[in-house]
Amino acid sequence: MSFAKLDDLCRKLEALEHALSILGADEATHMAVGGGEKRAEAMAMLAGMHHVRATAPEIADWIDAAENEALNEDQALALGEFRRHHANLTCLPVEFVERQTAARMRSEQLWRDLRAKNDWTGFLPALENVVSLVREEAAMRAEKLGLDPYDALMEQYDLGNRVADISPVFEDLKGFLKDFVPEALETQERRLSARKGRSLSGVYAVDKQRELGLAMMAAVGFDFSHGSLAVSHHPFCGGVPSDVRITTRYRSTDFLSALMGVLHETGHALYEQNLPKDWSHWPLGKARGMAVHESQSLFNEKQIGRNPAFWRWALPVVEKHLGEDWSIDDILPHVHHVARGLIRVDADEVTYPLHVILRYELERELVSGRLAVADIPEAWDAKMREYLGLSTIDNPADGPMQDVHWPGGAFGYFPSYTLGAMMAAQQWAALTREIPDADEAMARGQFAGINDWRRERIWSQGSRFSTPELIERATGGKLEAGYFTRHLKARYGAN
Amino acid sequence: MSFAKLDDLCRKLEALEHALSILGADEATHMAVGGGEKRAEAMAMLAGMHHVRATAPEIADWIDAAENEALNEDQALALGEFRRHHANLTCLPVEFVERQTAARMRSEQLWRDLRAKNDWTGFLPALENVVSLVREEAAMRAEKLGLDPYDALMEQYDLGNRVADISPVFEDLKGFLKDFVPEALETQERRLSARKGRSLSGVYAVDKQRELGLAMMAAVGFDFSHGSLAVSHHPFCGGVPSDVRITTRYRSTDFLSALMGVLHETGHALYEQNLPKDWSHWPLGKARGMAVHESQSLFNEKQIGRNPAFWRWALPVVEKHLGEDWSIDDILPHVHHVARGLIRVDADEVTYPLHVILRYELERELVSGRLAVADIPEAWDAKMREYLGLSTIDNPADGPMQDVHWPGGAFGYFPSYTLGAMMAAQQWAALTREIPDADEAMARGQFAGINDWRRERIWSQGSRFSTPELIERATGGKLEAGYFTRHLKARYGAN
Repeated sequence: MSFAKLDDLCRKLEALEHALSILGADEATHMAVGGGEKRAEAMAMLAGMHHVRATAPEIADWIDAAENEALNEDQALALGEFRRHHANLTCLPVEFVERQTAARMRSEQLWRDLRAKNDWTGFLPALENVVSLVREEAAMRAEKLGLDPYDALMEQYDLGNRVADISPVFEDLKGFLKDFVPEALETQERRLSARKGRSLSGVYAVDKQRELGLAMMAAVGFDFSHGSLAVSHHPFCGGVPSDVRITTRYRSTDFLSALMGVLHETGHALYEQNLPKDWSHWPLGKARGMAVHESQSLFNEKQIGRNPAFWRWALPVVEKHLGEDWSIDDILPHVHHVARGLIRVDADEVTYPLHVILRYELERELVSGRLAVADIPEAWDAKMREYLGLSTIDNPADGPMQDVHWPGGAFGYFPSYTLGAMMAAQQWAALTREIPDADEAMARGQFAGINDWRRERIWSQGSRFSTPELIERATGGKLEAGYFTRHLKARYGAN
Repeated sequence: MSFAKLDDLCRKLEALEHALSILGADEATHMAVGGGEKRAEAMAMLAGMHHVRATAPEIADWIDAAENEALNEDQALALGEFRRHHANLTCLPVEFVERQTAARMRSEQLWRDLRAKNDWTGFLPALENVVSLVREEAAMRAEKLGLDPYDALMEQYDLGNRVADISPVFEDLKGFLKDFVPEALETQERRLSARKGRSLSGVYAVDKQRELGLAMMAAVGFDFSHGSLAVSHHPFCGGVPSDVRITTRYRSTDFLSALMGVLHETGHALYEQNLPKDWSHWPLGKARGMAVHESQSLFNEKQIGRNPAFWRWALPVVEKHLGEDWSIDDILPHVHHVARGLIRVDADEVTYPLHVILRYELERELVSGRLAVADIPEAWDAKMREYLGLSTIDNPADGPMQDVHWPGGAFGYFPSYTLGAMMAAQQWAALTREIPDADEAMARGQFAGINDWRRERIWSQGSRFSTPELIERATGGKLEAGYFTRHLKARYGAN
């Protein structure tokens, strides 16, 4: 039976993915420094074995044959999702993938070196090569999937994301933020001068910060029998659903930085820990995509972790671990701090979308060929000045060279961040319509009702629906900017 | 070129072994408790992939063809070792391996349950099944390898170990210990009543014990850029040569237990870290076998770690970390404590070999069929009374049910422990002939000269020679009991 053959294949692929995930998390947390070369060799080899198995020629026949077998509803869904997954995986010829992988690796290595030297000109030929290959890739994916080229690139990260749906939403958001960023900054100014909060600057031992993080993780629903917290250079969520590895990094003089990292990664972890276990080896049982995943981390970090109601409960917990009895008025200016800046990853939730929209607009032009790679710095600078009033023309390192995505050839990924932020706001709005006292529950440290809603609507759904369908089913409406802009207004507006 | 095909195969197998080793070490150290089921599934799957690749039908042809290719000396050695390895791996039919694996797993699970209940009778049928399969296995291995059945079983663990060589050495040792155990116990009694050493019983925080262990590891040559120390239920050495994971466990009231675990596992780690890197993916580049591996851990633990000269250097290090200024006279009664006991893993270096010889003698009888499984308790009891003056007839849990080896079907493994102890003593004797001031160097905390000798003679040799050849080349003579008995006499004798 062909479905059974696919099931067996999925179990083998899951074992290799398990190894790759744990080896990856281990590399960033527990590996000895000299173990990197052999680790890279082993992981490349295992990834190769995974690819060979996942793209074996007989699989296409199995998929076709399985469609004529008697399948129950879940099996049929699983098969459909497998077919889409398989199409994404096999739409590029092997020789192209090899050529592209080599170009991406060279470009990424060069970028690490030249970004530090602020050398755009030196980097340009490598990026031109990467973009030229991305255009080829987009064309091949587009033909195989019957999509527009940029849509075909996004399809790798979130099934169903389309420019036709996203662009109007991003336009709405951009229009709102044009006026709102100045308003939020003025409001912040006014509030800060009106009150004198106590400073948060103290020195807090790493083990105390860790205990605080663990207490918060447990409270918001992290299952410690299926996961753990460690330390790494950058926070991440890795591992496998049965053993989710999240990390943060500690600065003794900035406890909020580590804690917000913990809350963000815990959002990713909750999604992974609550995926449907019976289908864990099939694409159907895996997280829907990058935008949905980001919506879960941002839900935890922004909708919960920066919510004043949350801090009514959290301040005594902080006091218990760090010994400081800060008030709401001390903490909110820090968790709600807004500032115009050059760097996306340092941006707050108000200005962040403008960084993403800038990249989304430029990469669509790059993929279509309407923008030449050589013209990126001017185009970037023009948009930065328009959206955030900042110039990067003499500073490519903090302009178009700041992210690893383009040097690594990942085009179509950036929208996920802001789509995730909007989805999180839309989910929170839907949740509070159904659970009107969610804020009050949170202020008492009760997250079970909130998590039940998220589990039912998002986590347990795995990849049963496309990203837009999942959001519509969960929230009762298509994705729109209004929920997010109302959220920003309520939190940062002049009101 | 067939040698190149084998080289490529070895790299793929090494990647899977890398994953299995790190996943195994991770399971015992960092895995969340609920992650075990999926981990077991992933590891079983990866082990299956490894077996399928390592025993693919075309490999035998590649080996034959490679022998006609122009190979340098190392390549020829690598090929020969690969052939032997391959023969060991392929001498059992797949259906037999599957039947045996299932029987072993059932028997091991049953054993865990019934050992706790001291229920030999309930366990008997499962063990009879395992032994009957081991007899079949030994016969098949014997035929394929042209060896006697028990030799063919030992061949899995150390190439070249033969009953004809080992039995006379074990007989010598047994004859010596018959009189020496009482002598050592009397000597201990006399020494203890003659002097009043300070007690070691204090409470020492785990982090201080850990720092002490790390300091000792660094001093004796552990390379922290290629390895680390963690905590697990039982101490072990795992991971890969480029990233060796050793563990210990801490009892706050017994710092010696954790420290001796660290020194023992560091011996295994030094072997792994100093294997020839260019051949790491071929059997040639791997550790020779279990007896040689145990000789390295016991060299560290017994020849170094329980040597009075070592403690002249180590006591100030202990004082620095634990704050206690014990004298040599305080510490030696603990590191040289001797006692007759029922349990092998708790035994000291004087009585330990009798536990092993008892098992060696019984398992040879079991494999040959001269001893029935049902008769083990009486046979065990008779030997325990003869060798150590203790009876286990009413206590099978602390008699023939104490070890996992027989329930798990690992026959031919036990000799490794005592062969390792003898090899370590013989290596130390050879080393001190060439480096007469080794004791003095150790007392100054200088281990480089000792490690240079071990690296040249043992570690860097990988699997270039059979176990007996390796020992003879390293020490200038065949394995004999005299070095070990002289070592015991000098340390524990009446003199």
